[in-house]
Amino acid sequence: MSKERFTTFFKDLQTTICSGLEMADGKGKFSSDQWEREEGGGGLTRVMTGGQVFEKAGVNFSAVHGQLNESIRKSLGIEASGFYATGVSIVIHPVSPHVPIIHMNVRYFELENGERWFGGGIDLTPHYIVEEDARFFHGILKDVCDKHSPSYYLKFREWADNYFFIPHRNETRGIGGIFFDRLKETDEFTIDQRFDFVKDVGNTFLKAYVPLVEKNKHKAFSKQEKNWQLLRRGRYVEFNLVYDKGTRFGLETNGRIESILMSLPELASWQYNVKPEPGSLEEHTAKLLKKGIFWV
Amino acid sequence: MSKERFTTFFKDLQTTICSGLEMADGKGKFSSDQWEREEGGGGLTRVMTGGQVFEKAGVNFSAVHGQLNESIRKSLGIEASGFYATGVSIVIHPVSPHVPIIHMNVRYFELENGERWFGGGIDLTPHYIVEEDARFFHGILKDVCDKHSPSYYLKFREWADNYFFIPHRNETRGIGGIFFDRLKETDEFTIDQRFDFVKDVGNTFLKAYVPLVEKNKHKAFSKQEKNWQLLRRGRYVEFNLVYDKGTRFGLETNGRIESILMSLPELASWQYNVKPEPGSLEEHTAKLLKKGIFWV
Repeated sequence: MSKERFTTFFKDLQTTICSGLEMADGKGKFSSDQWEREEGGGGLTRVMTGGQVFEKAGVNFSAVHGQLNESIRKSLGIEASGFYATGVSIVIHPVSPHVPIIHMNVRYFELENGERWFGGGIDLTPHYIVEEDARFFHGILKDVCDKHSPSYYLKFREWADNYFFIPHRNETRGIGGIFFDRLKETDEFTIDQRFDFVKDVGNTFLKAYVPLVEKNKHKAFSKQEKNWQLLRRGRYVEFNLVYDKGTRFGLETNGRIESILMSLPELASWQYNVKPEPGSLEEHTAKLLKKGIFWV
Repeated sequence: MSKERFTTFFKDLQTTICSGLEMADGKGKFSSDQWEREEGGGGLTRVMTGGQVFEKAGVNFSAVHGQLNESIRKSLGIEASGFYATGVSIVIHPVSPHVPIIHMNVRYFELENGERWFGGGIDLTPHYIVEEDARFFHGILKDVCDKHSPSYYLKFREWADNYFFIPHRNETRGIGGIFFDRLKETDEFTIDQRFDFVKDVGNTFLKAYVPLVEKNKHKAFSKQEKNWQLLRRGRYVEFNLVYDKGTRFGLETNGRIESILMSLPELASWQYNVKPEPGSLEEHTAKLLKKGIFWV
């Protein structure tokens, strides 16, 4: 059955990505926590802490099923209650402020009435935006999208711009990426074509991220740059706790808290009314945290 | 007019509390930021950072007016749109894990249709719960309440238990305190009697907190205790960003972000799946983070 194939892909993707990240780190290893969900299904949470490159990296796989309650059905705008959901979620907080935070989620959702779709996204949050790196990252995402549909990249990068946005700060979380949801079978696409796209997105993760890690991980950084990183992580926390739909869905549905909140950084900082100095690299980054930048 | 008297009290309360906290700190001073709100009114935000006792202390006064939009009227369950609101909000994050975090808010709200009420609360979040200190804190709050009505303390402490609660962690934020809202004029109470109560709550802040600061500020602490403090601060961030009505109201109504989020700590930490060691002081505290404890 399709859902077994999709599930197996996500499970294997987790293994591949953890191995790739361990290699990029050179020292840190992922722990494994298998967990079960009372209402049905479970997952495998893998976390690396204290790596030499990655301070905290979480790669979560889950495959859960059960009944959606009314309030969730309402907020998702769906009628059937029996569901199956599987996917992989990743957030990585590196040690160095010169290595960007990355997030990816790829998921499959199926209802008892036969409706089914893929969703996901991948976005980059550099503490310091480097234009060359931003172009590289978006270039890779564009290539993946273009392979599957000429309309994907433009649509999904705009979706990411709008999704990874912090209204109360009037700034984007980072340089965006792609975001998509409800990719169903249509006249244009079979479910397997949607799956092929999501597979390619998942398989792109290491190709899009590891080169940026390798390029930047040996750069020295100052105390001031570390402090800026902690402030940017504070914004990351604000986004995840206030706006991120996956996080809030998890909190409201009694999900496994430690797996949901493994996206939060080991350390984050809030300081009153910080204004980057004119002409500084911090100000340069702050100015680029806006929607509508076409990196490629 | 009443509202001027109430406003003046809040403004003076801010000054008194900042002076008291500067004295308790012995080194740190409060900065002052006067700000205006485009839609009407403004405030004075006072922040101390880098004190020897207080790492980050925010004491905010505001007096704002304008029109409430429909979505806020709906969520507040009120019909009139013209409003005036004034009050003082305080959150203090000390350097030492042995000195508790404290929060207080006292406020007055008035609608164009003549409806008006007081609200507020004061609650303590020790990183390490010390029973003697918890009894002292609640004893003072009970005395203040009892002076004004025999029903206040029981009602308002239960309200605090339910309000300062983190459902996704199934734990209270700290040892609670009192919380109250919509204290209107009734057959039993005039608006001035409500005001007298709120005045007493405000004036109790230093009496309830400074002795706990003095008692604990010189205690040595270990790296492990500091780490536990950072984790508890993480929970504080979770509460404020996910559940706190004042914070969310501010974020949704385009409030002054830096004044709203000054409640967040200078540093906070999230670590995967931390379980306090059996028999440790951390476990002792974790076990007391629940509703329904009657400290006095």
